[in-house]
Amino acid sequence: MKANEIINKLKKREIKLYEVEKYSSSVSEAVDIRRKFIEEISDLKLSKIADYTLNMEAAQKKNIENPIGTIQIPVGIAGPLKVKGKYADGDFYVPLATSEGALVASVNRGASTITEAGGVNVRIIDDKMTRAPVIKTDSGVEAIKIKEWFEDNFQKLKQIAESTTNHGKLLKIDPILIIGNYIYPRFVYSTGDSMGMNMVTIATEKVLDLLLNETNAQLIALSGNVCVDKKTSAINMVEGRGKTVVADILIPSNVVKNKLKTTASAIEEVNIAKNLLGSAVSGSMSFNAHYANMIAAIFLATGQDIAHTVEGSLGITTAENRNGDLYFSVNMPDLPIATVGGGTSLETAKECLSIMDVAGGGKAKKFAEIIIATVLAGELSLLGALAAGHLARAHKELGRG
Amino acid sequence: MKANEIINKLKKREIKLYEVEKYSSSVSEAVDIRRKFIEEISDLKLSKIADYTLNMEAAQKKNIENPIGTIQIPVGIAGPLKVKGKYADGDFYVPLATSEGALVASVNRGASTITEAGGVNVRIIDDKMTRAPVIKTDSGVEAIKIKEWFEDNFQKLKQIAESTTNHGKLLKIDPILIIGNYIYPRFVYSTGDSMGMNMVTIATEKVLDLLLNETNAQLIALSGNVCVDKKTSAINMVEGRGKTVVADILIPSNVVKNKLKTTASAIEEVNIAKNLLGSAVSGSMSFNAHYANMIAAIFLATGQDIAHTVEGSLGITTAENRNGDLYFSVNMPDLPIATVGGGTSLETAKECLSIMDVAGGGKAKKFAEIIIATVLAGELSLLGALAAGHLARAHKELGRG
Amino acid sequence: MKANEIINKLKKREIKLYEVEKYSSSVSEAVDIRRKFIEEISDLKLSKIADYTLNMEAAQKKNIENPIGTIQIPVGIAGPLKVKGKYADGDFYVPLATSEGALVASVNRGASTITEAGGVNVRIIDDKMTRAPVIKTDSGVEAIKIKEWFEDNFQKLKQIAESTTNHGKLLKIDPILIIGNYIYPRFVYSTGDSMGMNMVTIATEKVLDLLLNETNAQLIALSGNVCVDKKTSAINMVEGRGKTVVADILIPSNVVKNKLKTTASAIEEVNIAKNLLGSAVSGSMSFNAHYANMIAAIFLATGQDIAHTVEGSLGITTAENRNGDLYFSVNMPDLPIATVGGGTSLETAKECLSIMDVAGGGKAKKFAEIIIATVLAGELSLLGALAAGHLARAHKELGRG
Amino acid sequence: MKANEIINKLKKREIKLYEVEKYSSSVSEAVDIRRKFIEEISDLKLSKIADYTLNMEAAQKKNIENPIGTIQIPVGIAGPLKVKGKYADGDFYVPLATSEGALVASVNRGASTITEAGGVNVRIIDDKMTRAPVIKTDSGVEAIKIKEWFEDNFQKLKQIAESTTNHGKLLKIDPILIIGNYIYPRFVYSTGDSMGMNMVTIATEKVLDLLLNETNAQLIALSGNVCVDKKTSAINMVEGRGKTVVADILIPSNVVKNKLKTTASAIEEVNIAKNLLGSAVSGSMSFNAHYANMIAAIFLATGQDIAHTVEGSLGITTAENRNGDLYFSVNMPDLPIATVGGGTSLETAKECLSIMDVAGGGKAKKFAEIIIATVLAGELSLLGALAAGHLARAHKELGRG
Repeated sequence: MKANEIINKLKKREIKLYEVEKYSSSVSEAVDIRRKFIEEISDLKLSKIADYTLNMEAAQKKNIENPIGTIQIPVGIAGPLKVKGKYADGDFYVPLATSEGALVASVNRGASTITEAGGVNVRIIDDKMTRAPVIKTDSGVEAIKIKEWFEDNFQKLKQIAESTTNHGKLLKIDPILIIGNYIYPRFVYSTGDSMGMNMVTIATEKVLDLLLNETNAQLIALSGNVCVDKKTSAINMVEGRGKTVVADILIPSNVVKNKLKTTASAIEEVNIAKNLLGSAVSGSMSFNAHYANMIAAIFLATGQDIAHTVEGSLGITTAENRNGDLYFSVNMPDLPIATVGGGTSLETAKECLSIMDVAGGGKAKKFAEIIIATVLAGELSLLGALAAGHLARAHKELGRG
Repeated sequence: MKANEIINKLKKREIKLYEVEKYSSSVSEAVDIRRKFIEEISDLKLSKIADYTLNMEAAQKKNIENPIGTIQIPVGIAGPLKVKGKYADGDFYVPLATSEGALVASVNRGASTITEAGGVNVRIIDDKMTRAPVIKTDSGVEAIKIKEWFEDNFQKLKQIAESTTNHGKLLKIDPILIIGNYIYPRFVYSTGDSMGMNMVTIATEKVLDLLLNETNAQLIALSGNVCVDKKTSAINMVEGRGKTVVADILIPSNVVKNKLKTTASAIEEVNIAKNLLGSAVSGSMSFNAHYANMIAAIFLATGQDIAHTVEGSLGITTAENRNGDLYFSVNMPDLPIATVGGGTSLETAKECLSIMDVAGGGKAKKFAEIIIATVLAGELSLLGALAAGHLARAHKELGRG
Repeated sequence: MKANEIINKLKKREIKLYEVEKYSSSVSEAVDIRRKFIEEISDLKLSKIADYTLNMEAAQKKNIENPIGTIQIPVGIAGPLKVKGKYADGDFYVPLATSEGALVASVNRGASTITEAGGVNVRIIDDKMTRAPVIKTDSGVEAIKIKEWFEDNFQKLKQIAESTTNHGKLLKIDPILIIGNYIYPRFVYSTGDSMGMNMVTIATEKVLDLLLNETNAQLIALSGNVCVDKKTSAINMVEGRGKTVVADILIPSNVVKNKLKTTASAIEEVNIAKNLLGSAVSGSMSFNAHYANMIAAIFLATGQDIAHTVEGSLGITTAENRNGDLYFSVNMPDLPIATVGGGTSLETAKECLSIMDVAGGGKAKKFAEIIIATVLAGELSLLGALAAGHLARAHKELGRG
Repeated sequence: MKANEIINKLKKREIKLYEVEKYSSSVSEAVDIRRKFIEEISDLKLSKIADYTLNMEAAQKKNIENPIGTIQIPVGIAGPLKVKGKYADGDFYVPLATSEGALVASVNRGASTITEAGGVNVRIIDDKMTRAPVIKTDSGVEAIKIKEWFEDNFQKLKQIAESTTNHGKLLKIDPILIIGNYIYPRFVYSTGDSMGMNMVTIATEKVLDLLLNETNAQLIALSGNVCVDKKTSAINMVEGRGKTVVADILIPSNVVKNKLKTTASAIEEVNIAKNLLGSAVSGSMSFNAHYANMIAAIFLATGQDIAHTVEGSLGITTAENRNGDLYFSVNMPDLPIATVGGGTSLETAKECLSIMDVAGGGKAKKFAEIIIATVLAGELSLLGALAAGHLARAHKELGRG
């Protein structure tokens, strides 16, 4: 079919947006036709969306449906950032994609402070991906039997789950929560360098096939919101999901003074008053200032699932005045990331990963360590700025007297 | 200075990343030099990041520091989506930028279901932006005086705040929370079509100048995490932030059956077991399946602040079987968006906004209505798929007998 | 009927426990018969339950059904406790009913510390009682109309509500939350010296009669859990319920040392590590050590509704080292109490209230001030003990060297 | 010393309240002197507090300090309540101590409904007590080493912990949470029939002695609020504490109609609109109507720690209309109770426990099963009443037409 004809049929709704490929000679033609259709009905020129260099044929296989082109977001660099991790050890330059002015500058200032203070210590405490279906029985008594079925058959279930994947390992099914006649078994896997959501979904589904065969249980939903995916949750705070990572640094008082223009004591107080008390009284689960900013920017640059910013930004900041030096830490229980699969194969994402030498297999832990170091840089910088504002005012006030 | 020379100095850390502009003849040259520096130290070619068409000179003024190019993310189209709002009334095509395969297809299926059912009703209940500094006094008794100072001087403070902005209005300072000797006044503004964070920060700072002049109070931080910005919080669930929006639809049973391959009753149960009970037992504040996916994709396409996905994805889904028809609703208390300012001026963002006719002034409410309609489409589609999986299995099981 | 006959019929389930009064000549006889029945079927002697002096006839009218006697709980006294409130000003002795050894001693130690430090400052910030029904309509659009109905008719509704009560005033209906087709209007009243739950329920029901007459709305439940009664909730943390009270004190370093055997700095750290960080990571809304202990003991002594311990124990503790002196505060947003009505008319409760001169009308605010002062005493004492344990250990460790 | 003399010295604050025993010939004399002192300074007669039959000498050793007598609270009986548990199997009469009129009647109505429907199924899923200290190190890296120390030495630590107790077993130390340089190991014990808080505190302290000897870690506080004791918390919702118990029942439609005057469908809707949606939007962790009422009344009658009402009332109610029959469940993750120790030895408490045949050793699980059955009775009764009110109104409205 000719382009015009397809567009006309789209207008008359005789064919659907996703059917355009069927009538086109190539993906790129389909992209153009669909975009042209949108242009015509909207009376617009979408020349910038059209102007992409991404391999759309590849993207269309794994990343997108009904494509009309790409969006562009500027990417800036922060660094050097000295990281002292188990996997990431050295000075790094971190690509951050964002349209929020001042963010890269702020992270950069934090990175500079960190580097001058000798680097940030980072460690991965735990590493896993979870999937928790919701299953139905007739009663609580039956639900307990299903719980026991999972416990009794764990070794067999592990074998079944692992038969579906090369890299995934079923570590445990725990906790198995019961509410009335519903059961929520939380499947916990290690998933290597991929983020692992698809892997664990497939493996879990296979296990459930056996359950449905052997028992009278019914599957209500493959995900029962106890996973918990793309939502803030206390269970992930306690149990962890994705990478569980900690980072800290002791910054000498003169570095605090010269780089951040404030004092350890002022930052300690901002942290208590804002990140701890302020979040507590607001019923917020994120006891930090703005992890979400750094997470979003680094996820965007590197092809992560942006919706994971929600859980990825969970965490607690601490700050302690140690005789004028500043002990500062960032704690992230729930960082789901990948260096292979998903959006990481998009060309610009791959380049951004490569800048940090974390593209491809065997790199996810190193990447996690760099991410948390970057989060610490941004968090430190903002708390420093808030504290300095406070001091500036105090000085002004004293000057008034 | 020549490019090579700058790069050498960057390597020796004699100049900083953000100083490159100073020594370059143009922004684009600076971008190239910085990128080349990264390429050299990493032994990489960043040709895709380099291959941008965005106006980097404009972006560098407002959106990014230390740019080295752009990233590209594919954008797909879902629609037509019939929206019956107060501001958005008609059929819309919605651009979604994502690298997560199946998302656009899923939203598209939801949109198709909605359109066949006659459209989704959407309404904006509230519209505001907030900023809540944390202020310190000597004691609780003093803190109460500061609280009273805000209450007694509201008209004057309103005038001061509004003197700093053309579009912002200070609606109220409420609640004013006290913890020990700290006070957290929550400034609530209307901000027109911009998301408003900068506007309300500037206006609030001006008000605080008077406070610091007239009283002995100290400013600890311009944001005290009671705002609450870019974090999930109960206060925003109750009080609202950004746009507070509701959407619902009654889907005839035959549409549920034909389009979603399931029943109202099955979707109702998935919603209770997963979105309500599952989230409850997990200590999650998001009683929904995956608002974050749609919010992230539409935010990304249209130049919103991606970190706002965290609070923007807060909300509650309901589903009710009404004699075979499905009543389905999506409720979002905290949707901070803009059609002007921030990333909305990036060229691809502007094009994406234009597709929905929501670029520029006077369009933010219309945009909010389209967003929630899109979220409902995606949420409906996923719950439908989960429920259908469940039914499919039930059928298979019956077949076994 | 004779006692034996009634007991036989109870055994045969021919009459019910609550019907015993019908066949007895007096309340006290009914109490004895019911208890005797229990004794016989359990083969027990319930001589201690039988041995009461409370006026059971009065209690049976308002406080209890199917009584068989009373329980006894020992009541101890802590004090003197120096309170510097707006309503409570002076030294108080506080009755605490408990069976948990060490609690009274601990509060007493705190009271002694406070009194030596010159007394605790207490203030009531807010005072109200709430009731939030859940109402149903057909759709979100209809729900918004009901919300507007409440807003538009507020003055009329206020008049109706207040026609049902001598002391209650309807202050506002706010927030009015919407989820799908459900509406949750939060009715906020002042209720004088009674706790007010019954008062606000009756007044709200009357208002709802008009709603149901004038609109198509349906009442689903008189309480929709947005009140929120007898449950921990973020909305009560933010909006307050019952009395919202704050208390603080500055304790000279020598008093910290002599009375608590520790330092301001050690208590500050216990508070941060335990009450702030520990509660944060656990997903707890109570950022304190043990308000519940003091609340339960004072509620029990004075005839309060014991189930209100749940919300009454919500709150945040702060501790700050001020050059060796300790600034310490306790913040309670949600303290529902009474000095008239409910269990306050039980004889022992009235005596306990009288000890603090808070029995009867016009005393509820004074009582609230004494309660929070007592909570501060107990909280201070426990944090001090934990900190002293820590120091003791540090000393031991140093001694090892 | 003579009574008058002691009272005079108390007035002059020359002796303290807790020193009265030192100068008295017996506990009962000390009680009388202390009470007389309070009477004199308050110009009161405390004749009801004085009129106790409890063995104060015994109570003073374990339950109370500075006693002046007892309070009395009426105790009523609900039942027969048919329980079908693993430990409690049969019809029970449940003592409830309360001053809130209508509570016993409401539970009684629920019990009657349950019994007519054939009884409530109850099961204990888990049983444990926890203690989580907070420990300090210099850095996150050091904190991880301490975490590993706990993991590596578990068998030895188990031995040490169990050397301090006859009944306690250390089941695991999990999770071990890290925030910056703080570590929160959660010690999980089985504790037999005592509630176990003292037991686990002593055992944990002993383990910590070894830690402090073998490492450079510092103990900040024996409880770090990850236990979580006497506070509502998500961690206890997920991990459980005390007894984790579930109860459910299928009530035939005619029983729903005759006993509760409503329908399964109406109760299902009240549960969704109030207990699920209402609690969700309020940021409440208790997805139930009023567990706290039943927990408080049964705890009070049986000498439990009343402050445990806070965590004991955590839980989720479900209700499902099954073709007109009502499936109804109550789920309680965190029920800390005892049949020995603490307040259970008070005479009236022991009698109340005996009524249910749960006094003394070997009875705690049976007791837990009766408690949750009672909670279900009260919850069912209230939801039924709310639903019936709703139906009554619907009928009235229909009548209007």
